[in-house]
Formats: sequence, C-alpha cells, structure tokens
Amino acid sequence: MIKRPRGTRDFGPDEMEKRRRLEGMMRREATIFGFREVATPIFEHTELFTLKSGPNVVEEIYAFQDKGGREIALRPELTAPVMRFFVNELSSSPRPLKMFYFGPCFRYERPQSGRFREFFQFGAELIGNPGPESDAEIIALAASIMRRIGLKRYNIRIGHIGVLRDMLAQSGIGPDRAPLILQKLDKKEYGDARQRMREAGMVDEAIEDIIDITTTVGPLEVLDRISGEAHDHLQGVFQLLQAYDLPNLQVDLGVVRGLDYYTGMVFEMDAPVLGAEKQICGGGSYSLTDLFGGEKTFSTGFGIGFDRTLLALEKEGYEVPQHHVDAYILPIGPTTREEAHRIAARLRQAGIITEIDLMGRSMSKSFRHADSINARHVIIVGEKELAQNAVAVRDMTTGEQKIVGKEEILSFFK
Amino acid sequence: MIKRPRGTRDFGPDEMEKRRRLEGMMRREATIFGFREVATPIFEHTELFTLKSGPNVVEEIYAFQDKGGREIALRPELTAPVMRFFVNELSSSPRPLKMFYFGPCFRYERPQSGRFREFFQFGAELIGNPGPESDAEIIALAASIMRRIGLKRYNIRIGHIGVLRDMLAQSGIGPDRAPLILQKLDKKEYGDARQRMREAGMVDEAIEDIIDITTTVGPLEVLDRISGEAHDHLQGVFQLLQAYDLPNLQVDLGVVRGLDYYTGMVFEMDAPVLGAEKQICGGGSYSLTDLFGGEKTFSTGFGIGFDRTLLALEKEGYEVPQHHVDAYILPIGPTTREEAHRIAARLRQAGIITEIDLMGRSMSKSFRHADSINARHVIIVGEKELAQNAVAVRDMTTGEQKIVGKEEILSFFK
Repeated sequence: MIKRPRGTRDFGPDEMEKRRRLEGMMRREATIFGFREVATPIFEHTELFTLKSGPNVVEEIYAFQDKGGREIALRPELTAPVMRFFVNELSSSPRPLKMFYFGPCFRYERPQSGRFREFFQFGAELIGNPGPESDAEIIALAASIMRRIGLKRYNIRIGHIGVLRDMLAQSGIGPDRAPLILQKLDKKEYGDARQRMREAGMVDEAIEDIIDITTTVGPLEVLDRISGEAHDHLQGVFQLLQAYDLPNLQVDLGVVRGLDYYTGMVFEMDAPVLGAEKQICGGGSYSLTDLFGGEKTFSTGFGIGFDRTLLALEKEGYEVPQHHVDAYILPIGPTTREEAHRIAARLRQAGIITEIDLMGRSMSKSFRHADSINARHVIIVGEKELAQNAVAVRDMTTGEQKIVGKEEILSFFK
Repeated sequence: MIKRPRGTRDFGPDEMEKRRRLEGMMRREATIFGFREVATPIFEHTELFTLKSGPNVVEEIYAFQDKGGREIALRPELTAPVMRFFVNELSSSPRPLKMFYFGPCFRYERPQSGRFREFFQFGAELIGNPGPESDAEIIALAASIMRRIGLKRYNIRIGHIGVLRDMLAQSGIGPDRAPLILQKLDKKEYGDARQRMREAGMVDEAIEDIIDITTTVGPLEVLDRISGEAHDHLQGVFQLLQAYDLPNLQVDLGVVRGLDYYTGMVFEMDAPVLGAEKQICGGGSYSLTDLFGGEKTFSTGFGIGFDRTLLALEKEGYEVPQHHVDAYILPIGPTTREEAHRIAARLRQAGIITEIDLMGRSMSKSFRHADSINARHVIIVGEKELAQNAVAVRDMTTGEQKIVGKEEILSFFK
C-alpha cells in the first residue's frame, strides 16, 4: 500500500471543515484591518532563502534541482517570497501596503509531535513608515486574530532588537560578532552567551547587564530600564495598542528572534495551554527588500503557526458545529427515481445542502445512513404521495413526519 | 533582482480576491451537493504517479530525491493523492463517499500562454455504486458549478470508454494494443490511428466504423447507434441529468480521455470562448484503488482546470465588485491620534473594514489615498470635534459630510 510521505498529513472532511473555518476567520480579520491577500508559488529559487537565512538553511529545507538545472526549494516560510513579489512587482504601490497570506510551507527535519514537514502559516506584512503606528498595527492584527478565533489565553511579549544591539555596540562588539551572541541569548543559552561575550573582551559587569536585560519581562513600566530610540519607539507602540485593550501585553527585552534581518520591534505570542512548545506567532520589523535587489523599505510583519494555533484552540475545548445535511432524499420504488432527482436539483439550485440515495438502499438502511450523515430532514418520495403531487418529509430531530406538496418543498426549507 | 521561478505566478490583491471568490463558489456548490472537502500533501512518493500514469510521467513532473533518498514528486494532479488517502484511511467510510478538493498542482513543461508549471485544480471524487446515479451526480455537480459561477457558454460531452474498447475487442484487438490506438483516437490523429489498426490486422470496414463512432457527437438520439451495457448506462445517466435542465448536453462517443484507468462513462466540458484550448473540465469513472494496494472500488470524478475556467469567465466579461474599505480614519493633529486608533479598534471589532492613516499624511493627501483604496467613508478625527465628543464623517460617494457623535459611530456603519 502506498503511504503518504513521512511528516506530511492528509486532512479528512471534519478536519478540513475545522481548518477552513479557522482560516476563514483569520482571513476575515485581516481584511477588516485593511490587509489584502496575496499568494506566491509553492517553490522559489533556493537563493531567496539562503540570502535571507544564510547558506546553512539549505540543510533544513526541501531543496532540489529542477529538470532545467535550476536550484529550487519548497518555501520554508512566506515572508521572503512575499517580499520578493513586492520587489518584483509591487514596489510602486501606494503605502502603506498591507498584505496577508495563508498556505503550506515545508522544512526537512525529523518529524515529531506537532511538527510536520508540511505545515501551514498565516501571516501579514506591512510596508510603510518606520513609526510606531506600523508596528502597533501589525501587533494589533495578530492579537485581534487570536481574539476573533476565540483563543482564551495568550501572551504578547514585545521587545526591541536595538536594545541588546546597542548595548553590545557600546561594549565594542561589532556586527561581525554580535549575531552569534544574540542567537545564544535568544535561545537562553546563557553559559555560551557569557563565554562568547567574555571572549569578545567584554567586562563582567557589562555582560551581566546584558543578561539582566534579556530576562527583563513585565508591564510597560519595565521600559524605564532602557532609554534612547528603542525606548521611545516601544512606548509609542504600547500607547497606540491601548486602543485595542489587549490582555497580557508585556515588555520582554529578551525577545531577540535570532535573525539578522530584524531591525527594530520584535514580538512573540504564546499560548500557555501548549506547554513547552507554546509559541504561536512571531514577528517584528525587518529589512529584506534591499537584500533581494530592491530599494530599502521599512517593513513589519508576523507569521502565525496555523497548526499550533489550531492545536491550542482544541486544547482549550474549541468545537466546530457538527457538519449537517439539510435534506436527504429517498426515492421509494423504481418509478420515483427521476422525480426524486428533480426535487434534489431544485433544492440544490436554491442552495439547500441536499443528498439523494445513490446506493439503492432500503428504507430502513437509508434512514440509518441519513442519521449518520446528520441529515436534518428526510424527504421520502413514494408513489402514493407523488400521485397527489406531494412527498413525505420527516424531521430527523423530532421524528415528526408530514405530507408536503411538491410545490411547497422549497419554501419548507427556506 | 531575484525573480520567481519560470512558469509560476504571483497573485496580487485584486487577482486573489477574484480567485478566492471563484474558489468559494465552487466549494459552496460542492457542499450543497453533499460533497466534503479533503486535502492531501503538496508532494507524494513518485511511485504514486507512475503507477497511475506509467513511468514516462516522470519526464513531465517535478520529481526529485529528498534528503532521506526518497523519490518524491510535486503532485501533477489530485485524483491519485485523494485515492491514496482513501486507500490508507477512508476505505471503511460509509458509501457513497463524496469528496472535493482544491489546490495547486505542478508539471514540468515548457510554459506557454495559459499553461503554467504551477496551476490550480478543483475536483471531486465519488466512491459508491457503479450505477448511472453516481455518474449523473458527478456530471450534475461539474455542470452546476459552471452554472453557479456564472459561466454563460459551456458544452458537456459525455461518452463511454466501453464503446470503442468493445469494438476493438470484437475486431480482435486486446488490451496490449488497444491503449495506443485509443490514445491516437483521443488526440484525433486519425491517420496514425488507421495505420495502427491496420497493422493490428483490422479490416478497413471495422476501422472506418470505429473512426465513424469517434466522430459521433449529438443529442441523446445518437445513442441509438450503439447498444449493450454502454448504451444502457449512458441512457440512464442522461435520464437522471434531465432533472438539472443542463444546456448543451451531448453524447460524444469520441471522448476517450486516453488514460487506461477509466472504466466506463467519460466526459469533458469546454468553454467555446477560449478558442483552441477550450477544455475546462474532464472526468469519468475509473479504477485506481486496487492499483494503490486497496480493494477494487467503483469511483467516478472530475477535475476542473481552475485557471482556465477563470480565464473563460473573464473573457465572457466576468467582473468582481471592486474591493472597498468601509471607513478610513484620518486623525488631524498629534493629539487626536490615540482617540483615532480607539475608534479604529471599535469599528474593527464590530467587523467593519477600517483603515487608519499610518503615514502621517496631510488631509488632502489622505483624501486622495482614501479615494485610491475605494474608501466609502472618511472619518475625520479633529480636535474641535473631539472636544464635543464627535467626529466628522464624509461620504466619499456623495461628498456629503456630517458630524457624528463618538457613541453613534458604530450604529452609523451598521
């Protein structure tokens, strides 16, 4: 038996209904915020991702040669493709340009609980002004999506990449050494981080100041511990976000996000219900367009882990209404079949979810099947009733059955 | 500048809105017919597609080795993956099992007008009884989708693979030679077809009979020219389809669909507006589950070329309502900004599509921008009005402007 590839999933009808519902709510919320959907191909030139994340990323992605000898990769994320699209075709669009996207991404890694080789991302990117307004808009959207989908508990932690970068720079650590130290700090590997800072010639006091800042989490007042541009920017962002009355909004100066292309505000959201692997969203302001051959622009955005967010919802008890069928049509005897199909056609044209027996089942088996597919009504098309231009309609909830004239069926279901 | 890979496309906001709308209508119609959505991975084991279409298919698809040495291919179509899913996990589901799907597929071929390396397919598969009901249901859905999306002109041509297979068998052509002849007939390459039939030892009269049948297109009466199982089955299908009052429903005994796994009814739909490359849908009953290691089951289905169907709609003048924004909020002066964001947050929470100036534009530039994004109303948040707990709202269609109390804004937009 041929199986699906390792680390991928098939989605059956109930699962898809849940996923489409969630996707629809996210899409709707982004639209309400004035974002509009864009889409890019499933694969890109591999170079796009090595430019963004360094040559080592090839180890973790599906990279291959196509028949024309091109180096191609299944996209591991969607920010780079969307910014490539922007540089290629959208750079003269009026600002702010507010885009969102949803789709599968791919990484080649050992599959484990909750981590798949094909996974789904919902995200948004805003290209505009570097002021706090843009960052606030992006965070407000991410948080409003979580509110709209009904996630009960989530935390939003906002930091600024400039805080640690400035502190490192003041200690004489340049852009050659800073990234590795920031990566260690991001992973909370403080032993390694300390050692690297020491090797770079930093004094113990400066090192401990930095460690101290990365573990600084708290309400807005925490901002008092820093100053300068990062302070003013974050203060502006928090001020604007007050409008959205967000729960669990925190300053977290340890949010580093380990990647070089972030330029200012960075944020993460997590759902405590998920335990250790709890991050459901990450984002911040970044610079990629110049890397891809375009002009430098200010951009800010986020990516939501769709699968993990759905898992968080489910762990909180999220339930989708059971799928139902409005009418199940059951022709009795061979002469009623065509008329039964005519009734089905009329109901369907009117937008009523209609099933009709295709299996030639007996009456009792049909009722069992109608029940199993959650049919609200069964329309019994029998010879006797048809002779009177009518059918019998059974309400599957109450068990009540009545005769309905053929011409009244539509209005019965409206 | 990094470009997207050859033969792929990016979709901007207007294009995506059109595509999502069309996809939504197709999905809705399938749901009304009692079909439910499923999804499978973007890539599969290459073997899945060689089993279905023969080893040569590898030449035309994106096939590669993953890092674990597995032979993997981007899916070129969705019937094989969905049937693989069925065999793996759904084979004990109650029948009929009615599934639909939508997503990108991939083929490696020279890109040309209207043909892409990444293209989109919408399709449905029904697993149930081999009676005419199942085939009629599938054709009715395909046709109803075209009706629902508003395609004005399309033809539905229905044939039966058994007709030509039986005729060839009666002339002593076995399943070793028949497929190649059928392929030639499918492509209307009659010279080649004649030669191959002659080589196989068929007499001229039998050859011309076959050519004659493949060019037989017409109303139901055309069925009189054949007999046996194929005749009875197609007659049953046409009888049931009367319920749907379909335009341009024809018998076409030349629909062969060139593929070995079709077992009975085959059909195609085309949109004349497209000219030479006019086929927008193809399908029929087939057998694949046994090939994939499952039990033999009866299945029937279709695939709609999403891109080509959209193109047909557009050529017929299909238009999507222009995207709009309900409210554009314009804070005047620095002190009104926070209040403006509070108004935006409230409107957005109520589901009103709301933009707010993030660029610090002047009033006149803001109005120009609001106009360019098709904002229906501009809410001007000025100090003077705010002092009276009010804002000014300008209707961008009429130009009329009025003062609205802050507490009445929500009801103004409802």
